[in-house]
Amino acid sequence: MTRIKCTISYDGTGYAGFQSQPNQRTVQGVLEQALKKFHKGTAVKVHGAGRTDAGVHAKGQVFHFETDYELPEKNWEKALNTLLPEDVYIHEVKRKPEDFHARYHAVEKEYHYFVSTGTYDVFKRNYAFHVRYALDMEALQAACDKLIGTHDFTTFSSAKATVKGTKVRSLYEASFTQQDDTLEFVFRGSGFLYNMVRIMVGVLLDVARGKYTPDIIDEMLDKKDHQMHRKTAPPQGLYLWKVGYDKDAK
Amino acid sequence: MTRIKCTISYDGTGYAGFQSQPNQRTVQGVLEQALKKFHKGTAVKVHGAGRTDAGVHAKGQVFHFETDYELPEKNWEKALNTLLPEDVYIHEVKRKPEDFHARYHAVEKEYHYFVSTGTYDVFKRNYAFHVRYALDMEALQAACDKLIGTHDFTTFSSAKATVKGTKVRSLYEASFTQQDDTLEFVFRGSGFLYNMVRIMVGVLLDVARGKYTPDIIDEMLDKKDHQMHRKTAPPQGLYLWKVGYDKDAK
Repeated sequence: MTRIKCTISYDGTGYAGFQSQPNQRTVQGVLEQALKKFHKGTAVKVHGAGRTDAGVHAKGQVFHFETDYELPEKNWEKALNTLLPEDVYIHEVKRKPEDFHARYHAVEKEYHYFVSTGTYDVFKRNYAFHVRYALDMEALQAACDKLIGTHDFTTFSSAKATVKGTKVRSLYEASFTQQDDTLEFVFRGSGFLYNMVRIMVGVLLDVARGKYTPDIIDEMLDKKDHQMHRKTAPPQGLYLWKVGYDKDAK
Repeated sequence: MTRIKCTISYDGTGYAGFQSQPNQRTVQGVLEQALKKFHKGTAVKVHGAGRTDAGVHAKGQVFHFETDYELPEKNWEKALNTLLPEDVYIHEVKRKPEDFHARYHAVEKEYHYFVSTGTYDVFKRNYAFHVRYALDMEALQAACDKLIGTHDFTTFSSAKATVKGTKVRSLYEASFTQQDDTLEFVFRGSGFLYNMVRIMVGVLLDVARGKYTPDIIDEMLDKKDHQMHRKTAPPQGLYLWKVGYDKDAK
């Protein structure tokens, strides 16, 4: 059996999330359907690097699958893209050693979050979070800086989180850039808890609009309480941008 | 009765076009629904400046309606936007003289058409036409130049066109700009026949890929035959950008 690693983008608007669910259109579902078709009816299991929620997008999600088929990488790419719907696209296919695992071997993830601050734009409604308030960029910068580092992010995780074990994660980057009416956040870290980016963005925007001072971040990191009142920014601004692997796994 | 002129944008993806049709979701339909709700159940007729087909977008469509209600312009804007779905947005409301007509008084229209030439992008699939071939910009420029002016555009109109009378129209601008992987066409003229912009783009792209020389434009203008074989570019790249009125009508 060969392991195939695929890097894909998808528009999450029409999906109930990445992970397969009965009677729901999911990204994993359409990928497995395409693979099954290509393998003449034999079911092929897709292993994603991570889940994304309903409405969340991906520019560089990664998954792997196993196959008996032998094809050049470019041919896999073409054949599968032909079988996939218009809102999912495979950008790269790599043949991998048999022990490669898209989730277990991921050592870094990067998420971007888009906020639009101008006049409401119908064309951005599924691709950015539109806010109507003014943002204090200095306060926002101070709050971002406080998030960077290795912390227990319990307060920044959903109560629905199913992951057991430590809630300690390392955030290497928490930054933003502004262009015209769009604010683009970048979060890069060792791993992310369920809803962690959307909760971070929720708090960051509340700091930027003056509802809290940047010290709220310290308080939240100290509390380690996922019941603490926080806002969760909506899914449509969020993009799984990149999944990083050890050189060994590349 | 007061006449109210509204300038709106909409994402045409979820619509069977602008014009009302039974059992179809149309832009006119959702506008009339919102107006009826606001007028406590009284039907209000919407008069658009022009129709757009299924999947075609608008950045500056105009319509008017009549009302007994007296509200400041800004309040109309807020009230109606609250009642409209997320993919339609009113940008401006103006009170007008009783004889103003969104369609009959329009003296100029501007359409833009977006073509994406890079790697397939799932996020652009509903907002641009993706082509995989290389484009010769010089040939494209020459062909555009030949379109400008006052011509009989019969060959550039759909056989389904219902408009009677002259097919002579004046095109003031037919140009394009390129930024990164996106080609943006601008067409500005006195008026446009049914499917005219999409047929022009279809031919222009065939010239740009070397299928025809720019002289095909002269040939098409001379033929005046809407059965002549032509391609029609798909709807999702097209935007009704602006509707111009006489100063008197403003």
